[in-house]
Amino acid sequence: MVSKSMENLVKNSSTIRQMFEEGNNLIKKYGKENVFDFSIGNPSVNPPKELNSSIKEIVDNTDSKELHGYMSNAGYEDVRINVANYLNNEFNTSFNKQNIIMCCGAAAGLNIILKSILNPDDEVIIFKPYFMEYRNYISNYNGKIVEIEALEDFTPNLEDLKNKINEKTKAIIINNPNNPSGVLYSEDIIKSLSNVLYKAQEKYNHDIFLISDEPYREIVFDGKKAPFIPKYYNNSFIVYSYSKSLSIPGERIGYVIVPDEINDKENIFNAISIANRILGFINAPSLMQKVLSKLLGKTSDLSEYEKNRDLLYNGLTDLGYTCIKPQGTFYLFLKSPVEDEKEFIEKAKKFNILMVPGSSFACPGYVRIAFCVEYEMIKRALPKFKELAKEFNLGV
Amino acid sequence: MVSKSMENLVKNSSTIRQMFEEGNNLIKKYGKENVFDFSIGNPSVNPPKELNSSIKEIVDNTDSKELHGYMSNAGYEDVRINVANYLNNEFNTSFNKQNIIMCCGAAAGLNIILKSILNPDDEVIIFKPYFMEYRNYISNYNGKIVEIEALEDFTPNLEDLKNKINEKTKAIIINNPNNPSGVLYSEDIIKSLSNVLYKAQEKYNHDIFLISDEPYREIVFDGKKAPFIPKYYNNSFIVYSYSKSLSIPGERIGYVIVPDEINDKENIFNAISIANRILGFINAPSLMQKVLSKLLGKTSDLSEYEKNRDLLYNGLTDLGYTCIKPQGTFYLFLKSPVEDEKEFIEKAKKFNILMVPGSSFACPGYVRIAFCVEYEMIKRALPKFKELAKEFNLGV
Repeated sequence: MVSKSMENLVKNSSTIRQMFEEGNNLIKKYGKENVFDFSIGNPSVNPPKELNSSIKEIVDNTDSKELHGYMSNAGYEDVRINVANYLNNEFNTSFNKQNIIMCCGAAAGLNIILKSILNPDDEVIIFKPYFMEYRNYISNYNGKIVEIEALEDFTPNLEDLKNKINEKTKAIIINNPNNPSGVLYSEDIIKSLSNVLYKAQEKYNHDIFLISDEPYREIVFDGKKAPFIPKYYNNSFIVYSYSKSLSIPGERIGYVIVPDEINDKENIFNAISIANRILGFINAPSLMQKVLSKLLGKTSDLSEYEKNRDLLYNGLTDLGYTCIKPQGTFYLFLKSPVEDEKEFIEKAKKFNILMVPGSSFACPGYVRIAFCVEYEMIKRALPKFKELAKEFNLGV
Repeated sequence: MVSKSMENLVKNSSTIRQMFEEGNNLIKKYGKENVFDFSIGNPSVNPPKELNSSIKEIVDNTDSKELHGYMSNAGYEDVRINVANYLNNEFNTSFNKQNIIMCCGAAAGLNIILKSILNPDDEVIIFKPYFMEYRNYISNYNGKIVEIEALEDFTPNLEDLKNKINEKTKAIIINNPNNPSGVLYSEDIIKSLSNVLYKAQEKYNHDIFLISDEPYREIVFDGKKAPFIPKYYNNSFIVYSYSKSLSIPGERIGYVIVPDEINDKENIFNAISIANRILGFINAPSLMQKVLSKLLGKTSDLSEYEKNRDLLYNGLTDLGYTCIKPQGTFYLFLKSPVEDEKEFIEKAKKFNILMVPGSSFACPGYVRIAFCVEYEMIKRALPKFKELAKEFNLGV
């Protein structure tokens, strides 16, 4: 009786639950200290202290009916103005409240954009490896998914993009920095990508949207910065979430930037606000809007992730494993020492190491290691990775 | 460039904005005291004091990373258990956590249910007058809307239902008590409705779901109670929101009840949880889940709405206006003294009275008066309604 579009998802959900239970069983059997769960992309550092103090301050000093009440579907005006000003200061832009739509996290942001722009059978391009939920978001609005093959360094394969872009292409989704590869697209890459899109827009004489999903924007390493896409391409949307930067993924709060340079901007802005309403979000949670508005520029202690990256990357490469050095996010995408990464993952389980197969990101032959974990756990895990390496004759 | 499914919505949004601006202009011109805005269904009573104290207590006493972190898409287990226990106590049921899915308010609840059950061209039946957003929710999943004509007393027209129910019928949405009519469907009505549905299920040999949208469940008058649908019909869902009972519409928090009696219950439950994820809600906001879990059974002072109902209903009927006495919600559905209710509404604006046309609820010839306003405003408005009545020769 489940709808056809949901049938397979329901079937697969039992596999995910099984994985989850497997992890729990390992913990029961061997103790938490001896299980190395690198499978979950959940922030491991605490939210900044100012989060809870802001919540209490706002609750104490705001009229309760107003604080928890309805506002415009795009969000509180003062919050949108504060976000716009923060962005202007950070990226030297000139946004105002009509460029900002508060939304229930990045997943919501992507859905309200896609609802607003996709007609049935419009094509949306995504680059392997990618966050698998993009497939569902695109299918929700009867869009067609077009995959671009991965390059060895996991930067966008522009040659394959040129081949696959066509008159049906409505949008491209990128995720910068990237889950699961940890790769940060540089300014040069964004320029080249924009160049391809500008040419395609001209050739096919219609708008092609570049949607940049940026929940990891601040989690970047080695002093690097993520380029700010609207500077390079006209028809771009930024989808931002506070889930990772403030370690509040349960609160569902973020925003969409709709730059003035977007073609038909006013209608697009209105469509996205209305999509917020008709898809059932109505508005981003009201208290949390007010809270993050007080915390602009604040983050959790994200340097923890860089320390973890260093320990894990150095440790694994020393052992003979192969991977691109993550430049951002809290993921490391390791090349499986055998073609079928599921074999590698099964073997790793013998050492109580849990990882996600690359095929869950349309990129078999790799595994994703989420290093949003305690530093000490990585330390304890490395000797296990050493034993695992031996099984595959690495580093000998 | 806006998607075709959104084009008309974007066009119409300017009309709504215009109405809103019209109201603001009246306030600027005549002062807030002299404008009688009955157009907005926004709770007018304060949230209970325990709301803010609970927020602060939870923030102080819960691990911050956990409090604001991810949980299962269906919601925190402890919260779902508390909600189930509350319902069991209230309705003598035997729900457990596998019957409760926390969601981002009723709009979200309806969307995740419809996504989970609708195949393209499945028919969903709604009773006039109805909350217009139901049309969008059904269309989101390519369902077909089937409208049932209204009876004079706005109870469900079961004869028309019998005529229109067919092999394509997948679901019926009811809203009890009803926005905009204020009518409460009695136990007898629910029994008769269930009877029609049971017969149709048998005749067409497939499940027909009864979705009851109940954000106004506690706002009922004269000591009446809304019947608890799952007691009368097997394939029923309850969609509940705390927006009205706790006066927190901005926080987007509610739940879906999936009773054990639902056919294929386990898969349906999983589908709805997954729909929560793939539509981009992910989960109901985490802090608010914990908060409402502490407030079960608490409400704002809803007796204010009954006082408003009495003053408004008695005042208007004394003046010669015609309407059904609201038994719940904070709406009164007034018969327009002229066939075209928009003419009535335009005339009312001359007296600074703002109301919503019945055609916005698929029921022209009526107007909706939202009495979630200050008691004193109703008092001040009645003389204006008297002058308005004279224009239409009422009560003479």
